[in-house]
Amino acid sequence: MCRWAAWSGAPKYLEEVICDPQHSLIDQSRNALSCKTAVNADGFGVAWYGDRETPCLYKDVRPAWSDPNLLQIARHVRSGHFLAHVRASTGTATTRDNCHPYTFEHWTFMHNGQVGGYDTVRRRLDNMIPDDLYRHRAGGTDSESLFLIALAYGLKLHPRAAMARTVSEAEAVSKYAGTAPHMRFASAWSNGETLYAARYASDRFAPTLYYRKFSDGVMVVSEPLDEAPNCWVEVQQGHMIEVKNGTVTEMAFVSDEELAEVAAV
Amino acid sequence: MCRWAAWSGAPKYLEEVICDPQHSLIDQSRNALSCKTAVNADGFGVAWYGDRETPCLYKDVRPAWSDPNLLQIARHVRSGHFLAHVRASTGTATTRDNCHPYTFEHWTFMHNGQVGGYDTVRRRLDNMIPDDLYRHRAGGTDSESLFLIALAYGLKLHPRAAMARTVSEAEAVSKYAGTAPHMRFASAWSNGETLYAARYASDRFAPTLYYRKFSDGVMVVSEPLDEAPNCWVEVQQGHMIEVKNGTVTEMAFVSDEELAEVAAV
Amino acid sequence: MCRWAAWSGAPKYLEEVICDPQHSLIDQSRNALSCKTAVNADGFGVAWYGDRETPCLYKDVRPAWSDPNLLQIARHVRSGHFLAHVRASTGTATTRDNCHPYTFEHWTFMHNGQVGGYDTVRRRLDNMIPDDLYRHRAGGTDSESLFLIALAYGLKLHPRAAMARTVSEAEAVSKYAGTAPHMRFASAWSNGETLYAARYASDRFAPTLYYRKFSDGVMVVSEPLDEAPNCWVEVQQGHMIEVKNGTVTEMAFVSDEELAEVAAV
Amino acid sequence: MCRWAAWSGAPKYLEEVICDPQHSLIDQSRNALSCKTAVNADGFGVAWYGDRETPCLYKDVRPAWSDPNLLQIARHVRSGHFLAHVRASTGTATTRDNCHPYTFEHWTFMHNGQVGGYDTVRRRLDNMIPDDLYRHRAGGTDSESLFLIALAYGLKLHPRAAMARTVSEAEAVSKYAGTAPHMRFASAWSNGETLYAARYASDRFAPTLYYRKFSDGVMVVSEPLDEAPNCWVEVQQGHMIEVKNGTVTEMAFVSDEELAEVAAV
Repeated sequence: MCRWAAWSGAPKYLEEVICDPQHSLIDQSRNALSCKTAVNADGFGVAWYGDRETPCLYKDVRPAWSDPNLLQIARHVRSGHFLAHVRASTGTATTRDNCHPYTFEHWTFMHNGQVGGYDTVRRRLDNMIPDDLYRHRAGGTDSESLFLIALAYGLKLHPRAAMARTVSEAEAVSKYAGTAPHMRFASAWSNGETLYAARYASDRFAPTLYYRKFSDGVMVVSEPLDEAPNCWVEVQQGHMIEVKNGTVTEMAFVSDEELAEVAAV
Repeated sequence: MCRWAAWSGAPKYLEEVICDPQHSLIDQSRNALSCKTAVNADGFGVAWYGDRETPCLYKDVRPAWSDPNLLQIARHVRSGHFLAHVRASTGTATTRDNCHPYTFEHWTFMHNGQVGGYDTVRRRLDNMIPDDLYRHRAGGTDSESLFLIALAYGLKLHPRAAMARTVSEAEAVSKYAGTAPHMRFASAWSNGETLYAARYASDRFAPTLYYRKFSDGVMVVSEPLDEAPNCWVEVQQGHMIEVKNGTVTEMAFVSDEELAEVAAV
Repeated sequence: MCRWAAWSGAPKYLEEVICDPQHSLIDQSRNALSCKTAVNADGFGVAWYGDRETPCLYKDVRPAWSDPNLLQIARHVRSGHFLAHVRASTGTATTRDNCHPYTFEHWTFMHNGQVGGYDTVRRRLDNMIPDDLYRHRAGGTDSESLFLIALAYGLKLHPRAAMARTVSEAEAVSKYAGTAPHMRFASAWSNGETLYAARYASDRFAPTLYYRKFSDGVMVVSEPLDEAPNCWVEVQQGHMIEVKNGTVTEMAFVSDEELAEVAAV
Repeated sequence: MCRWAAWSGAPKYLEEVICDPQHSLIDQSRNALSCKTAVNADGFGVAWYGDRETPCLYKDVRPAWSDPNLLQIARHVRSGHFLAHVRASTGTATTRDNCHPYTFEHWTFMHNGQVGGYDTVRRRLDNMIPDDLYRHRAGGTDSESLFLIALAYGLKLHPRAAMARTVSEAEAVSKYAGTAPHMRFASAWSNGETLYAARYASDRFAPTLYYRKFSDGVMVVSEPLDEAPNCWVEVQQGHMIEVKNGTVTEMAFVSDEELAEVAAV
């Protein structure tokens, strides 16, 4: 399990999310609260959108708190749209290629969760990635394969449906050949303009997902960055949000029929 | 292209190969002579056999010359059978998982060369690896997939034939969908008792391969570690050697018919 | 604060201390119990004695649990005398040069604790190191300067007295210009034959120090590696131990007069 | 010896200096031409000025060409004032703290060269740094001590004189206790508004230093980034330049009397 946070709004120094809050992402890398693993120190990453259409990606394998470069960049870089992640490996190696976020052209993706029995189903997931995207597979995580499959399923045109289909099919693959829990998924993805985030699980224990509206933007997080009462809105299990121009729209992530099936588990 | 060296014989400090010779592996990481790329500084690795059946594997992404840990280990560890490698990436990322040697149980493999058009054929190579081995795929190099395919083809029982079949089929895949040169291959592999090394290419430019007999063992290398006259024996293109108990046996790597085809290119 | 463990006895795989025990050093890097900081993930190091007179030193800046090289080395290297350390920085940077143990010729030193107000007194400590040793100052920690000062005060000939004088003078420097607590010190040092460890503080809160006798050797640790009842002996504050050939001798670290003064604080 | 480049002018993507030119800084990290060492792969660093008064500093120990983070940052960050450096160690360890540039508040410094016999005179140099600056000494290089001494000698108020005094006194220290060549110095320093660069040596072999005027700014470099004829102006030995608002002023770095003495060597 991992922790992550994203911002969409007026330009903000990255440190205002990564370092400054009482329970900042760096604090969560040592002391996460709503997480199976309190220590999320198997690498980190941040992708921010700036002048160019594609995001800038910075990742490293050290704990977020011990990388002076991250502290410098977070202090000096300002962006109106960024995604940041601290990792706790669920088995794959601690390499930069296995750290989140992942980017492809102007799209970014980061993930907290897992595909159950990934060791066994990895091959099937990889085979769902078409050749022209497969060459971009750099590391070995389930998260990276989910992103590439979603791109293959039309993420650019159908940001909800492509991701929902990806998650449903990966869950089906895990049910066929993997182990329970078959799917745990709290993710954010973005094209630099609209930020999407979804919360889902094949059982009742979806990883947490919250957002908070500020006067100048919206923050979406794995767990609240502070204890401000009534400020952080929890996204329901099986739902997702779209954040654009300060507006948050909540909707079902998978269709109602699918949700009914999930609820019957 | 990369540089590598292996030792089979009486226990020797790793530094006697990696650091001490006039043109040691560390020197080659800065100034390789018989190599397309003089600088081989995209990581390094060494696998040595000791008390246990499996080898000990040490890899890192820094240039070999700048890693104080490597210098310490090379100075203090003694082994009668070890394989060491300095890497020059032909495209894949500089991560530990992409550094050689690769190990599986008690087998070790390292490679200098490439499969032509790997970006295009990578998917086909990965699909030649059966599921039970595929879960051990950690990085993204062609070399790692060659090793896993060879294991699937029976490397443990048929160390020559399994590797030759792997190389032939990978070459065929490259001829079908990749780009020339389809195969460049100078590799060593070992079970800790017998050291194998082969030199092959789909054209006339196989990477170099030499060995040298000492009173207490045999060294096999990409390029000679010193200028001692008449001491280093060049392995012929299309041939391989088996080194065991101080004896070197040279033989065709692929069959004569295959060699005839290769020669006709 | 940091955690450490040392072994003197029959050759043992490093992993028998670093990885295998219920509360191994790697477990302590995530979940230390008797320590101000539960997470000790700002680098690690191990120095082991083997064939050569000098020890082999392996250090890196990642958390101990995330370094595959450490796991390999711990699994394959066997030594009858080694010192291992996981670090939680008290302010200085997370670089290899700031990781413990420190070595000089055949001596090794590692430390848990701090000199109070080091930022202010660092200069004075550095000036206690004579020129011929000062060139070996590689990092910026108080621990490294304590080791070099102890070497200057004759550590090789007077392993107890030189270290005690170093600690007393560093404490005096901190009392003059630093901040309380002026000295916290739980350290081990060794020449490869005799292992020394001391526990001391300028107040009543000396970092913990334990040892345990096995049939084939003695383990000395910051905190017990398991919950075996009555097996781990706590070293008293202000005392030290000498471990040689399986025998543990406990004695006052600083003289009784000094202890009386300390007790009066 | 090292290679470096700096820009003062209209905002420019860092990659326009670090990656894009024919003989970019990354190309120089593999193939420097006017340098004792062709390979400058012992770490790198870049400091850029942006919204804040202090610069943002990014350093790492890998070769510049192998760090995907550097390529990302260079592609996405734009700055009107930045200093970039690729390092070839002259003896000190390859750690981030030993990589250039160095920063202090809003000042930045980077250096190509060395103080002769640094191992012997390091202690004397360190003692020229006053206590309040000494706590900022993080690594072990001569370059970092030169910067801190220059700050102590009033770099902020007298950017030329403070650096010249530092270099002269360090040279004197080396003449007293070090080895020849006593001083090799091609450096750039900056407060974010004015860029200073000097070329000096205690013998006739000062490291090279060039600048080039563009319509939108000035580039200052160790060696030209391309072969454009007549575009790169060589700074004379013993001279320095000040670059501000597109204007380059050349002047003696040390006084004429001092230059006369140097010429007499």
